[in-house]
Amino acid sequence: MKSAVSITDPFWTTYTKLIRKEMIPYQWDVLHDNADISIEKERDDNGIPSEKSNAIENLIIASGQKEGNHYGWLFQDSDVYKWLESAANSYLLHPDENLLEMMSEVAVLIEEAQDEDGYLSTYYQIERPDLKFKRLFESHELYCAGHLIEAAVAHYKATGSKKLIDVSQKLVSCIQQHFGVEEGKIKGADGHQEIELALIRLYEVTGKEEYVELSSWFLKIRGEDPDFYLKQLVENKKEGLSTGDFPHIDLKYLQAHKPVLEQDEAVGHAVRLVYMAAAMAEVAAIKNDEKLFSTARKIWDNIIKKRLYITGGIGSTVRGEAFTFDYDLPNDTMYCETCASIGLLFFAKAMMKNEIDVEYAEIMEKMLYNSIISGVALDGKHFFYVNPLEVDPKASAHDPGKSHVKPIRPSWFGCACCPPNVARTLTSLSQYISDIFENKLYIQLYQDFEGSFKLEEQSLSVSMTTELPYKGKSKVSFTGIEHPITVCFRLPAWSSGYNVHNAGEYVSEQDGYLEITIDLDKTIEIDFELPVIEWHAHPSVKDNFNKVALQRGPFVYCLEEEDNGSDLHLMSLTDKPLAVEVNDPVLSHYVGLKGKGERQLIDNTWQKQLYQSDVTPVTEEMDLSFIPYYLWANRSIGEMRVWVTRQ
Amino acid sequence: MKSAVSITDPFWTTYTKLIRKEMIPYQWDVLHDNADISIEKERDDNGIPSEKSNAIENLIIASGQKEGNHYGWLFQDSDVYKWLESAANSYLLHPDENLLEMMSEVAVLIEEAQDEDGYLSTYYQIERPDLKFKRLFESHELYCAGHLIEAAVAHYKATGSKKLIDVSQKLVSCIQQHFGVEEGKIKGADGHQEIELALIRLYEVTGKEEYVELSSWFLKIRGEDPDFYLKQLVENKKEGLSTGDFPHIDLKYLQAHKPVLEQDEAVGHAVRLVYMAAAMAEVAAIKNDEKLFSTARKIWDNIIKKRLYITGGIGSTVRGEAFTFDYDLPNDTMYCETCASIGLLFFAKAMMKNEIDVEYAEIMEKMLYNSIISGVALDGKHFFYVNPLEVDPKASAHDPGKSHVKPIRPSWFGCACCPPNVARTLTSLSQYISDIFENKLYIQLYQDFEGSFKLEEQSLSVSMTTELPYKGKSKVSFTGIEHPITVCFRLPAWSSGYNVHNAGEYVSEQDGYLEITIDLDKTIEIDFELPVIEWHAHPSVKDNFNKVALQRGPFVYCLEEEDNGSDLHLMSLTDKPLAVEVNDPVLSHYVGLKGKGERQLIDNTWQKQLYQSDVTPVTEEMDLSFIPYYLWANRSIGEMRVWVTRQ
Repeated sequence: MKSAVSITDPFWTTYTKLIRKEMIPYQWDVLHDNADISIEKERDDNGIPSEKSNAIENLIIASGQKEGNHYGWLFQDSDVYKWLESAANSYLLHPDENLLEMMSEVAVLIEEAQDEDGYLSTYYQIERPDLKFKRLFESHELYCAGHLIEAAVAHYKATGSKKLIDVSQKLVSCIQQHFGVEEGKIKGADGHQEIELALIRLYEVTGKEEYVELSSWFLKIRGEDPDFYLKQLVENKKEGLSTGDFPHIDLKYLQAHKPVLEQDEAVGHAVRLVYMAAAMAEVAAIKNDEKLFSTARKIWDNIIKKRLYITGGIGSTVRGEAFTFDYDLPNDTMYCETCASIGLLFFAKAMMKNEIDVEYAEIMEKMLYNSIISGVALDGKHFFYVNPLEVDPKASAHDPGKSHVKPIRPSWFGCACCPPNVARTLTSLSQYISDIFENKLYIQLYQDFEGSFKLEEQSLSVSMTTELPYKGKSKVSFTGIEHPITVCFRLPAWSSGYNVHNAGEYVSEQDGYLEITIDLDKTIEIDFELPVIEWHAHPSVKDNFNKVALQRGPFVYCLEEEDNGSDLHLMSLTDKPLAVEVNDPVLSHYVGLKGKGERQLIDNTWQKQLYQSDVTPVTEEMDLSFIPYYLWANRSIGEMRVWVTRQ
Repeated sequence: MKSAVSITDPFWTTYTKLIRKEMIPYQWDVLHDNADISIEKERDDNGIPSEKSNAIENLIIASGQKEGNHYGWLFQDSDVYKWLESAANSYLLHPDENLLEMMSEVAVLIEEAQDEDGYLSTYYQIERPDLKFKRLFESHELYCAGHLIEAAVAHYKATGSKKLIDVSQKLVSCIQQHFGVEEGKIKGADGHQEIELALIRLYEVTGKEEYVELSSWFLKIRGEDPDFYLKQLVENKKEGLSTGDFPHIDLKYLQAHKPVLEQDEAVGHAVRLVYMAAAMAEVAAIKNDEKLFSTARKIWDNIIKKRLYITGGIGSTVRGEAFTFDYDLPNDTMYCETCASIGLLFFAKAMMKNEIDVEYAEIMEKMLYNSIISGVALDGKHFFYVNPLEVDPKASAHDPGKSHVKPIRPSWFGCACCPPNVARTLTSLSQYISDIFENKLYIQLYQDFEGSFKLEEQSLSVSMTTELPYKGKSKVSFTGIEHPITVCFRLPAWSSGYNVHNAGEYVSEQDGYLEITIDLDKTIEIDFELPVIEWHAHPSVKDNFNKVALQRGPFVYCLEEEDNGSDLHLMSLTDKPLAVEVNDPVLSHYVGLKGKGERQLIDNTWQKQLYQSDVTPVTEEMDLSFIPYYLWANRSIGEMRVWVTRQ
């Protein structure tokens, strides 16, 4: 019996239900161009008018069943694969004949679209077969292959069907024939990392070590020859395959500016970086590759200590959706793509396979409860790509440097990576709850779940019920204990203390975990304190000087205009806020924070002046009202901010 | 005898000397591609590697003396014209045979490059004669014509040569044949305003009212048909003159989104807006056009009350070098182009021809002593396009959203509008010193000058010697007084009080001016107080919350890393600073400001943390040292900021 965890937590099952009932059917319609997304154009000036997907159509054309042109991005196929992965994950949680049939239909189509030799990427199949694997800096061929593989693995796990595992293995064979150290093969990696991670998933279900080797090779060939991508273009031109000027290839954007093993900072496109780093950690764990692991750890430390937003967002600039430099964390121009936070979650999980460090679990929790779910509206049909920490709708509308910062979630995107990525992640949440490492069971996240684990030659059942995320009490029951096991409960950094009951004698605190030896079936109670925490940022973070961000439990909080009025930048917190339970018609039940503050007034002397000397700011007292960050932009269009001036 | 003013002020003659000795010869070499600008590439990673100009070469090719292609921007010709205008202005201040010959050589070349029918724009002559006047949204043909006219007028005033006045009139005839209300003529204006202003200059030396009418027509046709520019492109395509997709034309960028008389906000490209507004004010004054004037005043008020940086910069975003929205004045991502401040100076001067309002003079002074001269290095050979209020060299290097914000002045630009624009402006400074309005002489700026004025049927001489800009004492001598005249001395907003001696009995304060009746030759002394002023920005200016900017006399001040160390954002001013005289080996003599302050320290607890709770900021006292803003970036590459936290 393998370990298995099933989440029963109301907080998260709300999401998985939303995914099952809303997102998956909606995204299915979008992929088939059936969704009535035109009405969304009326919704709001700030909403991006949604475009057609054509993703299923592209596969139909590639399969030869229809004539036509490819439409969409070079990576349009990946939308289908990510949908399929979400659908499979969701099916595993909640089997449904109709969904099984939808998945089956897509699986057949994918199989039909694959070329004889295993190649699969509809843009190149339909439009430019002569350029297959020849423009890797932008082609996303292996990126799409990676998402296909991840979907195939999920589909197999959920349904037992090996159809797409076969397609994947055939595709990987094709890749192996074209890439590698041998004479005449391509010696470079896809511009967008993803295959590296997917190959590990394929290894996990097939046991074939060659997939780990290929993943490792792709990681290590990256940046070995910084001219690799340009040389491909030169070669294409020589062969008459393409004309025109060579585009500028920003090698840092692709993390191909130097060999991966020499990289020690998080640079370039944030999603690519974390996908790559996650794969590095996965390969390191399987191959016990210390060099690879220590490189991944350097990148991890650089992100966590210097380039991470308090909400869990990464990517300080929209230009290249990229990292910038240490401590550069502007709140209103950043990118903080939902997918990048998802990638950081993968990275954290993969690091935990190498070593136990409570920081990985802290970061997983931060991602899940903040920057990932902030990407989804409560209706399950609107999505943020960009997750800002400060929004002014006027700036979004009139400052072109902030036009990417939407004050409301649009319905779907021309480049639609985030919505299905959220869906596949939240439907596979169970893997993040716990780890088994060196014969110890680690409980990383607190939520209601039922788990069965194989540990020390015993099969045991673990069941948790908890009042978290809003209250501190958790009960964990163990059954099936025949001889003693060690269970390590994460002591969350957001808790100022805890009480534990019925734990027995063998209890110790160790590196952020409460280590308990359990020698008979029992129910342990842990009660965490949930104080309101005021976070200060490192003084080198310019934009947060004299400001604090609030957290309670796993949630980071924010001010919204809806609750506090406009001009949030004129408000200061003057006292420690308190937690209050709120029942809101739109936001449902949540715990908000209320604190004394003051607001600087714009008195009459300012009516005709832009600048004045000898001014004494006039203020009035007010109550500041905070909501969990992930809930923002669900009620109205208005200002929002996470970092608030502290008097 | 016409009024004439000659500036003898050491502050400004330093600049006119620099222009004569350094900028004009250097720019001459650049235009002729003789300048050794390649060595500049070594200067600094942040310096833009300079490109070749080819501007003279383009004229030679257009004249038919040589075969070849046009190189550079569509408006490359204007670099030559702006150089010529500066050279002529400089020649007027300081005649020089060599310069006369250089100007003459250029004038002959321009005449030779002109087509038979008067047309002149080297890009279209050389590359696309079939598209003359047919892509006005971007062609800059009339923009270049405008700069030619301004150069011609300056050349004529300086040398008496009418050669380029003739070329200009021939060019305007050509324009009149192509543009106008008559059937078959073009009913639109150049995408970049400039001809409108230049036609007024041509009217002033020729007396031909048709030029005022043409200027007025160009102003009023703008935005009348918002589809005008697109229709030109559609027509071109129909005639087979161009192919491909139509580019997106941002009509607000061009201020052509609605008729000019309906515009009441400063929108779009900042230089275009102020050039247009200046022309509106000029035409309004000549034609007594109240509607045009009141529209110009609305735009003025919008800029001054809601969209003007404390330094005099305008243009809050690099995207489109443009205005954004009210009170949006970010300090580190703005544009604040040197040319835009020059245009605002023109606008202020032109407004003063309609009505006396001390605000116009205040703004002129603000531009001249701050955002215009900040565009030039003290060596006269390096120039800022962008004049930021906050710079961090790390951000300039690693945040693509700030890559336009240079921490050091580069030598020359691929698009080289600012350097010659500064040169022509500072060599024609005498026009801004004074105004005669409704039989009163207004003294607007305080600097050493000798002037002769015609007022109330008398010829009088006025001579000022002043300790300004750094100390307050001024003496003004009047000779040639036969019957009483009224002189109005501006009471600068930066002065907290003044003493006046020997003014006689007829003295009164009136709307920001000290009005004195002078009935005999005399020397009046005025002594202004120069306190250190702490400016607060309107509370709606988010980025300046809890901050002040310092001013003393006409100068706005800033902190530089060179004097204060790094991490300027961690420094706060805790007491009112005092003025101190400084003699610096690079900056020469200036008055700096020194004030008590404190610096938040980055203590050891931050070594491994990006966020901490329960932090008590640790601070240490320090002296903050400010320099006049225009002097920044002359000593080293480092941080700079104008707005400083005030405790």
